[in-house]
Amino acid sequence: MRRFDFAVGRTNPETFPVDRVQRAAKTAIANEYAQLTEYPGKLGHPGLRAAMAQREAEREGAAVDPDAIALMNGSMQAVTLTAEALTAPGDTVICEEVTYSGTIGAYRTLGIDMVGVGVDEDGMRVEFLEETLDRLGEARKPKFIYALTTYQNPTGTNLSLERRHRLIEIARARDIPIVEDNCYGDVHYDGEKPPALYGLTDYENIIYMCSLSKILAPGMRLGYLYAQPRLLETILARRHDAGGNYLAAAVVAELYRDGVWSLTEELNTSLKVKKNLVVDGLADAAGDICASSNPSGGLFVWVRFPEDVDQAKLARLAAERGFFYASGANFHIHGDEVPYLRLAFGHVPDDDIKDGIPILAQCLREARTSNEAPGFQGLFD
Amino acid sequence: MRRFDFAVGRTNPETFPVDRVQRAAKTAIANEYAQLTEYPGKLGHPGLRAAMAQREAEREGAAVDPDAIALMNGSMQAVTLTAEALTAPGDTVICEEVTYSGTIGAYRTLGIDMVGVGVDEDGMRVEFLEETLDRLGEARKPKFIYALTTYQNPTGTNLSLERRHRLIEIARARDIPIVEDNCYGDVHYDGEKPPALYGLTDYENIIYMCSLSKILAPGMRLGYLYAQPRLLETILARRHDAGGNYLAAAVVAELYRDGVWSLTEELNTSLKVKKNLVVDGLADAAGDICASSNPSGGLFVWVRFPEDVDQAKLARLAAERGFFYASGANFHIHGDEVPYLRLAFGHVPDDDIKDGIPILAQCLREARTSNEAPGFQGLFD
Repeated sequence: MRRFDFAVGRTNPETFPVDRVQRAAKTAIANEYAQLTEYPGKLGHPGLRAAMAQREAEREGAAVDPDAIALMNGSMQAVTLTAEALTAPGDTVICEEVTYSGTIGAYRTLGIDMVGVGVDEDGMRVEFLEETLDRLGEARKPKFIYALTTYQNPTGTNLSLERRHRLIEIARARDIPIVEDNCYGDVHYDGEKPPALYGLTDYENIIYMCSLSKILAPGMRLGYLYAQPRLLETILARRHDAGGNYLAAAVVAELYRDGVWSLTEELNTSLKVKKNLVVDGLADAAGDICASSNPSGGLFVWVRFPEDVDQAKLARLAAERGFFYASGANFHIHGDEVPYLRLAFGHVPDDDIKDGIPILAQCLREARTSNEAPGFQGLFD
Repeated sequence: MRRFDFAVGRTNPETFPVDRVQRAAKTAIANEYAQLTEYPGKLGHPGLRAAMAQREAEREGAAVDPDAIALMNGSMQAVTLTAEALTAPGDTVICEEVTYSGTIGAYRTLGIDMVGVGVDEDGMRVEFLEETLDRLGEARKPKFIYALTTYQNPTGTNLSLERRHRLIEIARARDIPIVEDNCYGDVHYDGEKPPALYGLTDYENIIYMCSLSKILAPGMRLGYLYAQPRLLETILARRHDAGGNYLAAAVVAELYRDGVWSLTEELNTSLKVKKNLVVDGLADAAGDICASSNPSGGLFVWVRFPEDVDQAKLARLAAERGFFYASGANFHIHGDEVPYLRLAFGHVPDDDIKDGIPILAQCLREARTSNEAPGFQGLFD
């Protein structure tokens, strides 16, 4: 059976630069084989750290010290390690109420008490942050605030500039670190986007993480953490993996010798086509019963459907027809069933998007238990 | 100043198979670029798992299921993840009294109470294990026994066959898991060595770990964990890194398409020469005041020196002359100063060994605070 797999976030294999990666590997292995026989250390490959510092500086217009960057085995290692270093079981952390399922899984394992703040079209609803913190009091004062500021997963929203400033202000006033996960930051299609938090402030307690999984390939397992010395040391003291992958880092440093942008642009151009196929396809086939995000970046479209959809039936019908998606409950910090689903489109061939979305729409219709109007206008109202 | 760096364990860059790794990279990238754009999953690259299952089966003469193997970012991830999954802060674990410093560091961070069992020429002194366990009682019953069974780091000893059987018997009778770290297992120079524990028993609670850091290169960050389903699942449930490095795994799987042995033999032949230069050099230059191991495998020589050596002075004198080693305290589970040091020779050019060992001998003599006979015969008496 033909398979329409929108479940897991991936990049586009069609634009993977096979020849360039092969050439980079040949050069890196020749030049750096001796370093390969050493342990990489807690920071990792200097060339890749320099390239990532340059990437950050060019994107955010702020100076970034390569020695404040530690390479990680994907940004998930940064997420996990930061939580391990800064929390003990039972500690509280603030997150967007719907957020990345990998982070939720790691936090759950670590026994972290996740407290959610809602999300709307401008990202985390920072206007509710202070009352949440007041309610938690000193006893449950969060160890940090975890925020997917840009192209939030799963909602695709960007935290507005005003909210970014407000978030920093509140965190600073209460001395709470912010963990800013910007792993989708360069999967950018159009429009302006606000700077990363670290580019807006001198507040020292920001732990920033980014990735190459979204602009190159998740199998490279390359991400990084950027923080000021005190927090960086605290987090790296918890690191006991003898360092990140040096082969992958050396190859990718060579690949990005002239910066990340030309390859990233090529990928993003292809992704924007796919994103539009998803958004337009949904509007055509299910505009009467669904609302969807139309993100200016990232790898996901977030879809709202009527409350009367029987989600178990939807999952069964879709699977029977070869269509796979991630259900909203995966992204809810408490696993609550919510009338949303997420479509990951980065790796899906254009034709599969065109043919797949009407199948999803049909499944949604068949899984409804009433014929009433959906009762919402937009994604968040 | 010329530098004689015997501090950190590494493989030999002189025998690193540059051309073969380049060719393997070219092929792997061409064949598997699409898989690179996926997340690798908790077990990792099927081809490398198959190659490692074959490596184990050929070495131990026991059937090994590739699906019971999970690739790790070096065996240190296996060490850390296992401890995270099976212990809580304050829990007890049994180790050899001197053991790998990386393991000690990870266990300390996790708040593990390490209880040591002495080591002699036949490895962990298993004859003291039962009385240690009796003494600990139910309240401090260890969550596992961690053992570097073969070419133990730092002592270079092999746990004897008799002790292996006895260790398994005791662990089974008391229902205590064994964590067998065999990361040096294939750095083999000569003689017979006893099988890995899992090859000797059907006891299900053995968590076995091995590595490619010692037979290929630490910068590849490739190790693995092998365990039966119940324990494997428990440990992998704690894994939140979105999987191991797929690029490195694909390249190395291609490199080892015809097995690991030809490349390993080439490396080991060069390492044996270096090991002999260290051992013979020490006998020549310091035989009157030192005893050293003469390991049949592994990357280290363990050196005993007189109790009257002022260790701070030794470290200073050696550093002044460009000679670096790892002091025994690094390998003691409680950080106790012991009159031993470890020499890592795998990466040291032969001429640096020849010229370096007499420098160490001279530093040892100058750091002594008496002229008495050293008062020991062998490495452990």
